[in-house]
Amino acid sequence: MNQPLKLFDVAGADPEVRFSPYCWRIRLALAHKGLLVEAIPWRFSEKGVIAPSGQGAAPVLVDGDKWISDSWVIAEYLETAYLDRPSIFGSREAQGLARFINQWTDAVLTPAVARVVLPDVPDLLGEADHDYFVVTREAAFGVSFAALIERREEALAAFRQALQPLRSLLVRQPFLAGEAPNYADYIVFSVFQFARIVSAVELLEDDDPVAGWRARLLEACNGLAGAARRGHS
Amino acid sequence: MNQPLKLFDVAGADPEVRFSPYCWRIRLALAHKGLLVEAIPWRFSEKGVIAPSGQGAAPVLVDGDKWISDSWVIAEYLETAYLDRPSIFGSREAQGLARFINQWTDAVLTPAVARVVLPDVPDLLGEADHDYFVVTREAAFGVSFAALIERREEALAAFRQALQPLRSLLVRQPFLAGEAPNYADYIVFSVFQFARIVSAVELLEDDDPVAGWRARLLEACNGLAGAARRGHS
Repeated sequence: MNQPLKLFDVAGADPEVRFSPYCWRIRLALAHKGLLVEAIPWRFSEKGVIAPSGQGAAPVLVDGDKWISDSWVIAEYLETAYLDRPSIFGSREAQGLARFINQWTDAVLTPAVARVVLPDVPDLLGEADHDYFVVTREAAFGVSFAALIERREEALAAFRQALQPLRSLLVRQPFLAGEAPNYADYIVFSVFQFARIVSAVELLEDDDPVAGWRARLLEACNGLAGAARRGHS
Repeated sequence: MNQPLKLFDVAGADPEVRFSPYCWRIRLALAHKGLLVEAIPWRFSEKGVIAPSGQGAAPVLVDGDKWISDSWVIAEYLETAYLDRPSIFGSREAQGLARFINQWTDAVLTPAVARVVLPDVPDLLGEADHDYFVVTREAAFGVSFAALIERREEALAAFRQALQPLRSLLVRQPFLAGEAPNYADYIVFSVFQFARIVSAVELLEDDDPVAGWRARLLEACNGLAGAARRGHS
């Protein structure tokens, strides 16, 4: 490595608590490619430090003089810029399909898991981020965190129902991408990792085939995700 | 071609009306590979003629002395048995992800479209199939066809909502598999082709990005799907 990569990675008040699903998929992509990265803790209130990216959300990757934002754009950048490294997609066709997985995850899974665990996030945040997070997320979901807590069981059932296509796949093969995990797996897993870091709620029943896959992803990339600090005991 | 392939393909009373989504994805896979096939009209009441497959549903592919059933199994068979032909998946990784598309389609899209167009199917069937179809499908969905017709608008709205991940993908790239269609596209398209053959209901609004993709698939494989006879005027 002659140019160290930097990643602005959403953190809690404890700088070792990294919970953003969009950042997690990039950290796993970087590990998959064997690229060393400095994952810099970043808070929602620190828009200024990522201003060169032209927008206000992490992940932001800095590679030399290039600033790249949006997790999908970053993933495609890494694949192309580091072609000599192991592919995170496998092929052009698989890259196309991974983008479908990305859209399905963000349209279906991420909102469904958020309705379960979002109310646990403010406890992890420092003073500067706490109110910003509550106000922006309550507006985005059109519901108060208090109401989300009340409806948690219902939200958990809906999340488990939304997993059905994934569940029926994972009784047939060990990973989304087949025999070994790649970026498609990291996208979907990042939602589980987000929940694991921010909440003590168990998303899956013990005998759910998705739980076995999640355990394999916690061990992938030398156990990167499994070793991450959780924001609760 | 030294051994002509045969495919038992679900047909209506009119033998040229072929409407099964599971058969359509295989017909497109065969065309993608440039394999000639005799697509034999098959009716639900003709379990006997496909008995050598060990089960009672089409598609069934006959390749020499081999009888293969289940659309996914047939697709994997064709890919492996005709490796010298153009790949329908693109890579092992893309094959893994195409199986997710298969599970998502069958768990989410197929039931959603069925709730819109299923009541139009019996009109296409001969006497021997008509009652069998109504009885088995009403039992499977737990609802009468009369009730489905009453709730059609609601079902159409739910189907369009279920397309959201596909829609958000297709504003970003022309096909699920990227720049050119492959089996992943054929799986999802087969649901639209089923609806197009059996029903006059228009599933999509004109400006839906999914409609442009559907038009491209009607033209794919030398216009195979676009040229198919519809069961209504």
